[in-house]
Amino acid sequence: MTGATGPVSRRRLLTGGALTVGGVVAGAAATAGLSGDSSKAASAAPAMFGGNVVPFHGGHQAGIDTPAQAHGTFLAFDLAAGVDRAALGRMMRLLTDDAARLTQGRPALADTEPELAALPAHLTVTFGFGPGLFAAAGQEAMRPESVAPLPAFAIDRLQPRWTGGDLLIQICADDPMAVTHAQRMLVKDALAFAKPRWVQRGFRNSRGVQDDGVTQRNVMGQLDGTRNPALGTAAFDAAVWVDSGPSWLHGGSTLVVRRIRAEMETWDAVDTTGKEFSVGRRLASGAPLTGAREHDLPDYKATNALGLTVISDTSHIARAHVDGDRQRIFRRAYNYDEGPGPDGRSDSGLVFASYQRDVGAQFLPIQRKLAEADLLNDWTTPIGSAVFAIPPGCQPGGWIGETLLG
Amino acid sequence: MTGATGPVSRRRLLTGGALTVGGVVAGAAATAGLSGDSSKAASAAPAMFGGNVVPFHGGHQAGIDTPAQAHGTFLAFDLAAGVDRAALGRMMRLLTDDAARLTQGRPALADTEPELAALPAHLTVTFGFGPGLFAAAGQEAMRPESVAPLPAFAIDRLQPRWTGGDLLIQICADDPMAVTHAQRMLVKDALAFAKPRWVQRGFRNSRGVQDDGVTQRNVMGQLDGTRNPALGTAAFDAAVWVDSGPSWLHGGSTLVVRRIRAEMETWDAVDTTGKEFSVGRRLASGAPLTGAREHDLPDYKATNALGLTVISDTSHIARAHVDGDRQRIFRRAYNYDEGPGPDGRSDSGLVFASYQRDVGAQFLPIQRKLAEADLLNDWTTPIGSAVFAIPPGCQPGGWIGETLLG
Ligand code: HEM
Ligand code: HEM
Repeated sequence: MTGATGPVSRRRLLTGGALTVGGVVAGAAATAGLSGDSSKAASAAPAMFGGNVVPFHGGHQAGIDTPAQAHGTFLAFDLAAGVDRAALGRMMRLLTDDAARLTQGRPALADTEPELAALPAHLTVTFGFGPGLFAAAGQEAMRPESVAPLPAFAIDRLQPRWTGGDLLIQICADDPMAVTHAQRMLVKDALAFAKPRWVQRGFRNSRGVQDDGVTQRNVMGQLDGTRNPALGTAAFDAAVWVDSGPSWLHGGSTLVVRRIRAEMETWDAVDTTGKEFSVGRRLASGAPLTGAREHDLPDYKATNALGLTVISDTSHIARAHVDGDRQRIFRRAYNYDEGPGPDGRSDSGLVFASYQRDVGAQFLPIQRKLAEADLLNDWTTPIGSAVFAIPPGCQPGGWIGETLLG
Repeated sequence: MTGATGPVSRRRLLTGGALTVGGVVAGAAATAGLSGDSSKAASAAPAMFGGNVVPFHGGHQAGIDTPAQAHGTFLAFDLAAGVDRAALGRMMRLLTDDAARLTQGRPALADTEPELAALPAHLTVTFGFGPGLFAAAGQEAMRPESVAPLPAFAIDRLQPRWTGGDLLIQICADDPMAVTHAQRMLVKDALAFAKPRWVQRGFRNSRGVQDDGVTQRNVMGQLDGTRNPALGTAAFDAAVWVDSGPSWLHGGSTLVVRRIRAEMETWDAVDTTGKEFSVGRRLASGAPLTGAREHDLPDYKATNALGLTVISDTSHIARAHVDGDRQRIFRRAYNYDEGPGPDGRSDSGLVFASYQRDVGAQFLPIQRKLAEADLLNDWTTPIGSAVFAIPPGCQPGGWIGETLLG
């Protein structure tokens, strides 16, 4: 149950040579219609990916070390009054069963549109437990201390409608219809226990727009994700998977979801040099201001003729950088765009999602430094915030959360 | 300007043998970064489609006979007070220039995130003129009579927030980021003349989920689009392109956008037989109830042992069917899903978009019959409605709307 050593460890799949697309098995689901045989790995990437499945079972939940799919919806719920540990167990058994089926291209047990389940397109469903769930379960002692609302930052303009939540369901797929269908089935089954608090729909480039693994741009035009722990590496494992503290969470992780509005009207008024200065990287190439190529290492000490550092000490990358794999965070962010308001202003930005072992030890020090000083703050505003513990994965027959609620 | 006989006619491209993907030229934009050489057609479909461009110029606007892209956003605007024919001409010159560049993978003239323009992924931008635009232009006499609010139907529950509009911009692409960027640039340039009235974001299956040309399912689980005039056929041309009436519109079309909510909660309570009876087709195969395969012709007269027609006379396909190419409509619909509300109920359905030569002669008779009696009405509710004239395309140097406003 814990760690990455189970027989269906996603990390093993990731690093195993048989698979070209990280962690993804080209399933027979598309051909077979409703059956997802994920044990047979295809030797070459298929032309059509609608039937492709990501294994559900394993030491870790999928949707974290899964290459980020094009569409990601984050759903937070408030638990209904009176939902206790036993009820939570029933809820998680039900939701796990739904997720195990849907992600493999099979209808949920009570699926009312079973035909919509046939094309999962790398669907993953990832569950998270907010602070309130531990209280409801009478398991406060099992809650990692920093799985709690983040401290208030001066930069925050948090709106209750994007903040908090007892239960998180993260649904990602390379097809928006797969997300929509999974969302509907999961929400229906959650309703007996909880009601939706917020929904955030995000997107990245469609699969096939660019080569897999290429760094994508966010709505501000920046290459976003350059220095992120790489999937399938020891650095990733060290940053993301819990290996100490309450043992129920070993093999799990924690997730911070921040809705961060991009102030596009003022950002667009800045010239390229100003934009690049605020981040410390070039817009066109993503290269650090001290380098030529995207993956050149930034030289934070290099100075210009005036004796000033080329990469400003208050640039986003200078402030956000940390040394040491166990200090890093793994960003798995999505863009959002709700379309222009009546005044024509953009309502877009990032559904910033950060996975790490420990919010307090990894996310918070970075967020604090950014809140203190980061040139980019002038054009980004946190308007939502939520923190969740991400239980480990489960084996067939098991269920997500069993180590806490079982 | 009028008709499909220009040198860059999209229909020619469609039916020309060199291109495998209808109307789509595999541009060099991806490789070249910011240059879109759409004159060099690739002989085979490229693995990555981010750089693919759909020609902008031609006898017709793109985005109608373009194979429906995965993402479609419909933006309606209200014109500002005092915007007259001359101002409308300036606006359309500006918007045409933006669209001509962005669709070819080039930044707009005043592009503030030029890097986001490099991956158009089959981006198309299609402009429409609502009733109010003719009044503002002092061109009432040029307005086709049925480019007007639809008559009220008993089934309607129209909300002002999804209804009407003087100007439409339909933005479609196989990448959500391409849609977002084009939307931002176009909205910025429209703002001097108009303000957003509504935005409807729709989706279909991602490119690569299924083979091109396969009928897709809508949120109700139905195969939707089976009997639709096929792109590149005479039947399509006869249904879609204006060839009579005011000559400024020849080579253009008309568009009806209806936001139709799917009543998923009650729909899901119906069993498969009931669902199939209401449409007249099978859910799994899309075959008519009198046939075995999706494209078998329905036999509306066939009766069962009780002497009742197998396909109910009040089924959706019996009511919606019309004979004669010039009577048909071309449906280019998208799904929408705004996520569950606080009560957990779905907010999803169709951004139903119908192109036809003449709203009064084609769309209205069908809509009237459906509003009178259609079993499907129990589970679908029109909540928005708008009608637009779709000007013909333009040649390089020209602009969309020049035949009316020039
Ligand atoms: C809208 C808000 C934000 C935008 C637009 C943004 C954008 C960027 C960009 C363009 C980079 C450089 C490329 C890269 O390495 O990915 C970057 C790096 C980074 N960002 Fe952000 N970011 C945002 C918010 C945050 C937040 C809230 C955090 C954490 C609290 C964060 C943590 C990081 C980290 C750790 C790096 C890598 C630093 C390094 O080691 O070089 N960012 N971000
Ligand atoms: C949410 C609302 C709607 C849904 C879910 C829906 C669904 C369907 C389905 C499943 C079919 C059969 C497959 C096909 O040929 O595409 C169909 C056919 C059709 N629908 Fe609809 N439809 C809706 C609204 C409308 C509206 C508003 C119109 C026009 C006013 C319309 C016109 C047609 C036509 C013309 C056909 C083809 C009929 C034939 O010749 O066989 N539909 N629709």
